[in-house]
Amino acid sequence: MSNESVEAYLARRAEEVNASLARLVPADDVPPATIHKAMRYSLLAGGKRLRPALVISAGEALGAKAEKLLPAACAVEMIHTYSLIHDDLPAMDDDDLRRGRPTCHKVFGEAVAILAGDALLTRAFEVLSSQEAAPDAERRLLLVRELSAAAGPVDALIGGQVVDLESEGKPVTAATLEYIHRAKTGALLRASVVMGGIVAGATAEQQVKLHTYGEKIGLAFQIADDVLDLTATAEQLGKTPGKDVAVGKATYPAVHGIEASRAMALKMISEACAAVQDLGKGAEILTALARFVVARVS
Amino acid sequence: MSNESVEAYLARRAEEVNASLARLVPADDVPPATIHKAMRYSLLAGGKRLRPALVISAGEALGAKAEKLLPAACAVEMIHTYSLIHDDLPAMDDDDLRRGRPTCHKVFGEAVAILAGDALLTRAFEVLSSQEAAPDAERRLLLVRELSAAAGPVDALIGGQVVDLESEGKPVTAATLEYIHRAKTGALLRASVVMGGIVAGATAEQQVKLHTYGEKIGLAFQIADDVLDLTATAEQLGKTPGKDVAVGKATYPAVHGIEASRAMALKMISEACAAVQDLGKGAEILTALARFVVARVS
Repeated sequence: MSNESVEAYLARRAEEVNASLARLVPADDVPPATIHKAMRYSLLAGGKRLRPALVISAGEALGAKAEKLLPAACAVEMIHTYSLIHDDLPAMDDDDLRRGRPTCHKVFGEAVAILAGDALLTRAFEVLSSQEAAPDAERRLLLVRELSAAAGPVDALIGGQVVDLESEGKPVTAATLEYIHRAKTGALLRASVVMGGIVAGATAEQQVKLHTYGEKIGLAFQIADDVLDLTATAEQLGKTPGKDVAVGKATYPAVHGIEASRAMALKMISEACAAVQDLGKGAEILTALARFVVARVS
Repeated sequence: MSNESVEAYLARRAEEVNASLARLVPADDVPPATIHKAMRYSLLAGGKRLRPALVISAGEALGAKAEKLLPAACAVEMIHTYSLIHDDLPAMDDDDLRRGRPTCHKVFGEAVAILAGDALLTRAFEVLSSQEAAPDAERRLLLVRELSAAAGPVDALIGGQVVDLESEGKPVTAATLEYIHRAKTGALLRASVVMGGIVAGATAEQQVKLHTYGEKIGLAFQIADDVLDLTATAEQLGKTPGKDVAVGKATYPAVHGIEASRAMALKMISEACAAVQDLGKGAEILTALARFVVARVS
């Protein structure tokens, strides 16, 4: 599958995901309107919807229908968006621009931005507890467990953010840097893939393959993101470029250099593809997505 | 049951709940240590543990064992604590004192306090997805649904906080004030009672009674809290008294006067007790807890 057709695939999936997200969050005239406006402002601001696409393509690889994967896909995107809203706050990364628009707290104020993040985090689990999230109660619970662990403090999203904040402006070891990336970005990307498998009723053996694939592309994605922060424009990124360097953030290019970082990302993508190659024809899109993740920098 | 024995009951339950909470959150040497220290600092700071006691006593009223109710009880307390941490932030209520100690952001800084709140919110759902939370997957999912709805933006915790913030320093109608109290405090207190019923396998009819009881004591509790803010000391409250008036918060005494507020709280408590009276002997503690909630102000 060419990169052009991956982009077309992502665009089609993004449209379905956006329509679902718009349905799954209260309309912005439901009282209290402010909070729903803020939630929708950040959630429906666009973005590649890579995580939802991973949920859907992993589930499809195992034979599930895309429409059945949308609730889980949307729950992951809600978690991702909440983490961006909180991450952008003045007390955290203090960012003004996100997905090409002013950040949530710039538009709605800090208090509402904090609460909008909280509300999206909470809503993600409500969505997973609904009947549509998976064919049976056991699978829905597995989804809650997988997503809550990936969004938590131990080797996962929040833990990565803490170490990232604590490392700002300090020299970091390669091991700490890998921890930050695996936890802050990798855990949720891996969970996306695994959750697709859960909805589809993956066997334990299939889940191991999806887990490996998800872990590898999760780290490769963040390394690629680090490289892009150095080489892309604000328009390409939808956020302020060069920010990582400016605030002394730990990045792969800073520790390993740009070329070595690219090579590491490419190696991980090869390993990710190898992990899922015997899932058969269904894995084609997973392989294409993996290559797409690093195509931006290679 | 006398108020002294309710206090003894609450103290015994609080001890069990504190022991469970300490087990259910990562130890403060698990990396990254900062976030786990901050979570434990706020979560294990004491407090009456009224919400967990409501989960346990509602479940016990229907024949469940207290130990089986502890995970659900702890999940509710995690949500309550997260909401306090975020509510206390400078961008929100800007409070320095909570449960008699400096607030989370005063000790750990704003960024870690935001993340500690996020982590407790996330952990609550992870706990409910664990096998110990309820005897079967269906009930565990009902717990996730009940708690996520009660902690959400529509007629629930976050919605109440938004309207509360938006009403500061403005004249509010009695209807808006009731909305704030029902949503901000009432929803989680009601969910506590309903969740006890879910773990115990309540029938639909029993759930209606518990729901009514929970709704009534939820509102009565917050009215009593408003009255106490005017009449109690910092030592009694564990937080700054007179704060509501100082920042122009909407309160029942401000809108209805102290005496009328007391009378409304007492009336609601009578109605709460009436709702559960035919649950039999098991409802004794629910009745005693309801009376205890307003005993502080009557």
